[in-house]
Amino acid sequence: MKAWHFTTTNEPLVEADIPEPTPGPGEVVLDIKAAGLCHSDVGAMTDPGWLALIPHRPIVIGHEIAGVVARVGEGVTEVAVGDRVGVCPTASEGAPGYARDGGFTYQHRVLAGDLVPMPEGLTFELAALGTDAGMTSYHAVMVQGGLRKGDKVGIIGFGGLGQVGARVAVVNGAEVHVAEVNEAVWDRARQAGAVSVVKDVAEWAGQDFDVIVDYAGFGTTTADAVAAIRRDGRIVIVGMGRLEATISTRDVILKQATLIGSNGGTKEDVAAVYELLARGDISPEVTVIGFDDIPRGLDDLRNHRVTGRVVAHIAD
Amino acid sequence: MKAWHFTTTNEPLVEADIPEPTPGPGEVVLDIKAAGLCHSDVGAMTDPGWLALIPHRPIVIGHEIAGVVARVGEGVTEVAVGDRVGVCPTASEGAPGYARDGGFTYQHRVLAGDLVPMPEGLTFELAALGTDAGMTSYHAVMVQGGLRKGDKVGIIGFGGLGQVGARVAVVNGAEVHVAEVNEAVWDRARQAGAVSVVKDVAEWAGQDFDVIVDYAGFGTTTADAVAAIRRDGRIVIVGMGRLEATISTRDVILKQATLIGSNGGTKEDVAAVYELLARGDISPEVTVIGFDDIPRGLDDLRNHRVTGRVVAHIAD
Repeated sequence: MKAWHFTTTNEPLVEADIPEPTPGPGEVVLDIKAAGLCHSDVGAMTDPGWLALIPHRPIVIGHEIAGVVARVGEGVTEVAVGDRVGVCPTASEGAPGYARDGGFTYQHRVLAGDLVPMPEGLTFELAALGTDAGMTSYHAVMVQGGLRKGDKVGIIGFGGLGQVGARVAVVNGAEVHVAEVNEAVWDRARQAGAVSVVKDVAEWAGQDFDVIVDYAGFGTTTADAVAAIRRDGRIVIVGMGRLEATISTRDVILKQATLIGSNGGTKEDVAAVYELLARGDISPEVTVIGFDDIPRGLDDLRNHRVTGRVVAHIAD
Repeated sequence: MKAWHFTTTNEPLVEADIPEPTPGPGEVVLDIKAAGLCHSDVGAMTDPGWLALIPHRPIVIGHEIAGVVARVGEGVTEVAVGDRVGVCPTASEGAPGYARDGGFTYQHRVLAGDLVPMPEGLTFELAALGTDAGMTSYHAVMVQGGLRKGDKVGIIGFGGLGQVGARVAVVNGAEVHVAEVNEAVWDRARQAGAVSVVKDVAEWAGQDFDVIVDYAGFGTTTADAVAAIRRDGRIVIVGMGRLEATISTRDVILKQATLIGSNGGTKEDVAAVYELLARGDISPEVTVIGFDDIPRGLDDLRNHRVTGRVVAHIAD
């Protein structure tokens, strides 16, 4: 079957012909229906710092995978042939596209325990992006942020993750405020339910937010979040726009505030996002491309020629 | 009755004669037996930044109070005349010595609900220091740090609070490591149960601590703690040696680590510390002085002429 192979940094993907996988005990093989493209694929292809995470090359990259169970191995009870499923990229077996072959091909071998059932009405394209972009956004707001109904929530950055995070917060009953430097997306933020939008997090000083999720992570955004959080409030750091932040430990101490990192998520997070996507509570902007367009799609992502998420439709 | 009045910054305490208090509804009056001296008393006397916290002057300062219930007001059911109690400084009524008259006198009026019963065997001197120094140390380790038996714990700073925090961690079954620049107290740290002592927190990099409590708070100590914490670990910031820290948000995110401030505590924390003090599980170094020596004791604290805590014995 055809597959896109990653060999090393700054080399184009190579179209390869690889054998169809066979499920071992506890494993299944999926017919891949959709595979998401992600900024971290671009990172993997252009930044040698990622190579340590991708020890076995050439490898099929792509870590946002949804499809249909085609074959099941010995002892598999969780799913059956014909089931529509997504692959949790952070589950037991190591991340697809990093530790083992990923989604930019036609079939995928995976532990049955790493699969998340797709609810009725969810498209494969949304199920694919739900595994990583959805999970990561959700985990930051709901798990690390511990959001509760009625919370006053600040979302910093209204890009791919922030858009999902803002909707997750709105749908869960929060009063959502957005800080986003790009005024072109302010209307979209308001349509998503934000009650206010500001350009600079510093404008939030003293507003006593319950939870702030920093999807930008520009250092100053996190520092300004400390000035905006209430006593005992939580600041979740997701984005790595910069790798350091200088924060007021005085304010953190006097407010007994929490700063917590968020990275990835769990099968439960994927399942929760799937429900929201299936109900239409979250409608991320998606560009759908074909299998042959994957290298060009990654190039478009790299050159910021696309907004929202890009998903490859692999098969009907 | 005699009392030590604070008037304003950099003025000596004034010996005053004030009326004995009368308990209102829900209140009691204590015969004060011991009152602790604290570095924050020194701060209040020497740094004009504290005046905003002490709006009504002259005021009797001193916020670590233990004594015996002498009179009870209408509707008091929590305690009875003759009960031995400590005053939780963070409970409902505003802090003694800041919002209202404190402990450097002979009687104290306080809401009955703010009192913590003293277990048998606990001296008034230890009960006094348990209310603030004890509570604050305990709260940082057990509540904000969420310490569990078997945790690998780093205690940064083996001063007044760190000494108590280290013992709280040891007694609760943690493997305790201490970082302390002053080598003169390293033996005492080992006697307290520390399995290792280092000079510089940077030596802990990569050691995957479950919990680190930074009683020093020198900015670099917190930054180095980030390098030493495990995935999903917790760093508690207590000390304000510096008011800012530049931390690696990259590490916080990838480790999903938590940084949390700790400031004060609760009646439950005081009660828990009282049990540990009464059993001898914590034996802080205490210098006991008389009522007339309080100004000189504060001066000794200010000029670092004393190690450990200083408590005034007020009455037998």
